[in-house]
Amino acid sequence: MPGMPFADTPRPPYVAVIFTSIRTEGDHGYAAMSQAMEDRARDQPGYLGIESARDAGLGITVSYWVDEAAARAWKQVTAHLVAQRRGRSAWYADYRVRIAVVQRDYGLDTSEL
Amino acid sequence: MPGMPFADTPRPPYVAVIFTSIRTEGDHGYAAMSQAMEDRARDQPGYLGIESARDAGLGITVSYWVDEAAARAWKQVTAHLVAQRRGRSAWYADYRVRIAVVQRDYGLDTSEL
Repeated sequence: MPGMPFADTPRPPYVAVIFTSIRTEGDHGYAAMSQAMEDRARDQPGYLGIESARDAGLGITVSYWVDEAAARAWKQVTAHLVAQRRGRSAWYADYRVRIAVVQRDYGLDTSEL
Repeated sequence: MPGMPFADTPRPPYVAVIFTSIRTEGDHGYAAMSQAMEDRARDQPGYLGIESARDAGLGITVSYWVDEAAARAWKQVTAHLVAQRRGRSAWYADYRVRIAVVQRDYGLDTSEL
């Protein structure tokens, strides 16, 4: 659901790909690429949702997938897009990618706090 | 290391706590609480690092821990702090917490892309 801030994920387990990045200066086609990536992700098999935030220091995008295979397939798609368009160094000064399996989750309404 | 944008995490596996939130309007002591929480986290046993970004739509904070027990211990500390200071509803319109085990990771210099 576009514009929905939280990913509507099912009961765990599922896979989270945590992408943390520092941008380079200037756009260099980044905004268009970023939107294209998100649009493409929604059409991928096994896609569950995406959550994203960026401020002056750092950007964090977490995409959610039914399993590791779906996350890997998405990685191949992004690799192709990036290769077709621009070297990743044009957009990112540095980044980290972490692939994780979500074991449990909760929200404000179901908080254990 | 304060001010370092990326968490200096070890080889997987380790635990990521993904906290995604929508703020309420106004500060209500949030900035001070947020800083106090981060300072306190650094002193917790099993703390590995934290990464955080917030824009108009969403905030994402990912804290990293050596294991699930360390992440749970931290949750008790935050629960106390929140209880002492303010109901969580004063700060957050809504949030999600996901506890995940990182299986693999890489960066710009070690990319498989």
